[in-house]
Amino acid sequence: MALRFAEPAREAYHFPLAIGHLLDAALLSSADQEIVYRDQMRLNYRKLRERIGALASVLTGLGAQEGMTVAVMDWDSHRYLEAYFAIPMMGAVLQTVNIRLAPAQIAYTLSHAKAEILLVHRDFFPIVEAILPKLPSIKAVLAITDGADVALPHFAAGEYERLLATADVGFAFRDFDENAIATTFYTTGTTGHPKGVCFSHRQIVLLVLNAKAPFGVTQAGGLGHGDIYMPLTPMFHVHAWCVPYIATLLGVKQVYPGRYEPQTILELREREGVTFSHCVPTILKMVLDAAAHKGTDLSGWRMKIGGSALTSALCKEGRNRGMTLISGYGMSETAPTVAVARLSAGIQDEEAQIAAMTVSGVPIPLVSARIVDQNMRELPHDGKTQGELVLRAPWLTPCYMGDPAASEALWRGGWMHTQDLATIDPDGTIIIRDRLKDVIKTGGEWLSSLTLENLVASVEGVSEVAVVGVPDARWGERPIAAITSTAALPPDLEAINAPITSAIARGELSRYALVDRVEVLQAMPRTSVGKIDKKALRTLLGQQTPQPSGAGR
Amino acid sequence: MALRFAEPAREAYHFPLAIGHLLDAALLSSADQEIVYRDQMRLNYRKLRERIGALASVLTGLGAQEGMTVAVMDWDSHRYLEAYFAIPMMGAVLQTVNIRLAPAQIAYTLSHAKAEILLVHRDFFPIVEAILPKLPSIKAVLAITDGADVALPHFAAGEYERLLATADVGFAFRDFDENAIATTFYTTGTTGHPKGVCFSHRQIVLLVLNAKAPFGVTQAGGLGHGDIYMPLTPMFHVHAWCVPYIATLLGVKQVYPGRYEPQTILELREREGVTFSHCVPTILKMVLDAAAHKGTDLSGWRMKIGGSALTSALCKEGRNRGMTLISGYGMSETAPTVAVARLSAGIQDEEAQIAAMTVSGVPIPLVSARIVDQNMRELPHDGKTQGELVLRAPWLTPCYMGDPAASEALWRGGWMHTQDLATIDPDGTIIIRDRLKDVIKTGGEWLSSLTLENLVASVEGVSEVAVVGVPDARWGERPIAAITSTAALPPDLEAINAPITSAIARGELSRYALVDRVEVLQAMPRTSVGKIDKKALRTLLGQQTPQPSGAGR
Repeated sequence: MALRFAEPAREAYHFPLAIGHLLDAALLSSADQEIVYRDQMRLNYRKLRERIGALASVLTGLGAQEGMTVAVMDWDSHRYLEAYFAIPMMGAVLQTVNIRLAPAQIAYTLSHAKAEILLVHRDFFPIVEAILPKLPSIKAVLAITDGADVALPHFAAGEYERLLATADVGFAFRDFDENAIATTFYTTGTTGHPKGVCFSHRQIVLLVLNAKAPFGVTQAGGLGHGDIYMPLTPMFHVHAWCVPYIATLLGVKQVYPGRYEPQTILELREREGVTFSHCVPTILKMVLDAAAHKGTDLSGWRMKIGGSALTSALCKEGRNRGMTLISGYGMSETAPTVAVARLSAGIQDEEAQIAAMTVSGVPIPLVSARIVDQNMRELPHDGKTQGELVLRAPWLTPCYMGDPAASEALWRGGWMHTQDLATIDPDGTIIIRDRLKDVIKTGGEWLSSLTLENLVASVEGVSEVAVVGVPDARWGERPIAAITSTAALPPDLEAINAPITSAIARGELSRYALVDRVEVLQAMPRTSVGKIDKKALRTLLGQQTPQPSGAGR
Repeated sequence: MALRFAEPAREAYHFPLAIGHLLDAALLSSADQEIVYRDQMRLNYRKLRERIGALASVLTGLGAQEGMTVAVMDWDSHRYLEAYFAIPMMGAVLQTVNIRLAPAQIAYTLSHAKAEILLVHRDFFPIVEAILPKLPSIKAVLAITDGADVALPHFAAGEYERLLATADVGFAFRDFDENAIATTFYTTGTTGHPKGVCFSHRQIVLLVLNAKAPFGVTQAGGLGHGDIYMPLTPMFHVHAWCVPYIATLLGVKQVYPGRYEPQTILELREREGVTFSHCVPTILKMVLDAAAHKGTDLSGWRMKIGGSALTSALCKEGRNRGMTLISGYGMSETAPTVAVARLSAGIQDEEAQIAAMTVSGVPIPLVSARIVDQNMRELPHDGKTQGELVLRAPWLTPCYMGDPAASEALWRGGWMHTQDLATIDPDGTIIIRDRLKDVIKTGGEWLSSLTLENLVASVEGVSEVAVVGVPDARWGERPIAAITSTAALPPDLEAINAPITSAIARGELSRYALVDRVEVLQAMPRTSVGKIDKKALRTLLGQQTPQPSGAGR
């Protein structure tokens, strides 16, 4: 039996890993530090703490209590930051609602999570009005008019700022078990209903402590004292990767952009001096296009990129505009950060730097990662052998809510299954080669759609690219490229295949890798979180008559 | 009731905050990274992990089991690092023995901690031989010959390297409760027996995660990827401030210097390229003197200083030799890190930089700090009001072993009492003004001995200084300065009082602050961990006939 403390002092404080404690050090050392919301609000950490107390008082007045789910539908704002703290600190569960889902899906997630109180921005009043009749468990709706002089809807119990203004800031938060659930949200699966994941106070605090300064990027990309932070990953999406919590822990200046509009984002960055953000490649592309349009220099802006792979072409585009871009890896089930690319100070060569910055990353502390075959046998870390990436860390979701079969599959063999196909280099660098289900199986070989996409992205005239496998009677599947292009004459099949041909000549790809067809689309089909919807693409491209497969095979 | 996970997957891994998990990420990403011990041993992280398994096998062969205390008497070495992991990972308790204590005190701590197995370096064979008869609980002694061809003493069950060479590296470590006690050691109080503190796996892991990149120093003083680490705080002393654990977590190159010899330290620094160390001011002074003697440039060497205050004079001396010195604050009871000085990138002026680097520091994440009066009333953070510093953090010892009265006093009112008198600036900077018991009470006013020491340290010819209060019939106490000096003609009372006189003229000190007497000593009396022993000084200086008190008061 391992020994435990036999006689702790009666009054010794047992410090729980609770979200409220993330504020302790910052309130001491950064009480006057600013938090900015667009043009509408400037507060500081001292005021933030008061407003957290006031929000808890308001919610309690609306009937909130420990164990209850309180849902938020808002854009990125100081209000969301307040909810990130106040709701879990009350012992309630914060549900961050994905406002990009269809109304019926939003209703499903609210109902499934048993939300009883709803905070809702005026932009979503119509949706809420439509779904509220189907949600009898909702006891109260707190409306957010966001500075506009609009009438409150009939279903609202009050307005956010108006109620906070007169609420008691001295709400008596109490300590409770660090394993209490703090947050929940729903992942947008490509099949069936969205799946609910949830995270405890302990899990979020441990992720925050481990992700706050991932080794490897301390010299070039970590968030630290002196930085100015603005999220560009929606706060409903995996807690904006927990970075608002990290920024608050560090006591840095924070800037919240509201609804993402490229013009506002660029103005806020310049006016407030933003140095650190994070987003998916789609948002990065939007920001870069807007900056290119105005010729804006983005020097001094470091950005973590996740959600899907950062291509070399996009990385280069960002660098040309002065940005430092760093890849990260994670998923909804992992809260999300698991790995971050490591920039060694020693790397001088630009291509080598880009290569280092666009890999999926090196595990952050307390992450244990393996690649395994279908029988959970561990595979070598040789940078070549591909297997499913499986993980252990203190902050992985232990289940999908109300879906025991999916939960058991997620944790088969005591490791969390990412369903991502990866290699691990001898130096620990994890490179995601593909989603297991997005791998293209052709002629008895597996082709990584990500590798092909990275090559095609470098072709002149290609704005975006997705490569999917469509059924083929002879080869099983064949790769088809879908692109968008702003060029007057979009690249043809030969141009698209040129870099793939070179890679085949260099022995890096099999000769099965040439794409059979290129489709130029007006826009990519997307999931609710802005990722390219490959399931929809496979359906779309599979329905069209395939041309004959490439000759010579 | 706060909600808990209702239905975690049956196979979901419940990740304990256990010391063994600190190795996970490093084994993935730094398996080939070096660990160096003087000229005697070079291994890498993969080998370290094997040797940790082998050591656990050896200890099990000697009778070690969960819950047992295993004590180590060694200099800083790869062996100590192996013990830091293997012993707690087995569920046993690592006792780090302060080898600077008197033999009777060492025997007391081993007996009090109920140590049953002892690892002992050949330098301590005579001590162990002498005290072993009084320690019937010791079941086995593992001898460390450290490369010398010496005969094993009769009490040794075997030799460290010889037994490890053939032991099974595949020891089956199992997970256990993160609240299990991992380490214990004894603080060297100035009265009575040494007091035992202990720390759980959870506490050490949380300190490691929070101290690994204290905000504020990320730009100038943090330990990170690419650094090369060498401890200069003994590994028996508060786990060398937990930095060997941090270095291992980060996967950086580590260099262990054995017994501290200035020449060896400077050679290792140069040969291995050491960039990061930590020590008490006494060791820093020793290193700087050796470097001055040889004219060695120490550029690129960053050093955290703790244990006692870093004076401006010593900080300047280090800077002149190219070093970056950063103050930190902590104590045995706090495992130890609580605060680290914050260097803002914006500070250009040298004096301002030195001022920022020599303060006690800003609380690291998850530390909650207050200054209070004797009735536990919180005092303002105005940089002027002095009060006792009290703390909460997840890694503070909950008790002194077997001393419930001292434990209750430590945690009076639910906060850990540091017995340090401090101010807190509005920006959160904690400055330790004095030990409560070292404050000089004169003419109804309190004088900080640290403030006086800092002023006197700047006087030409002063090597070291300590100011203590000695009883005075008229004033209660009067300040006396004890100095060491290498000057042919040591400074006299007038020279010593010159900077104090200036400070009085600037209104920074009361006129009671002038020291009454200066005593030039050959060497300062020191405690076992190298701090100046003020209790001994007070006795020494109090015994001598005081000169008449300064006129004019």
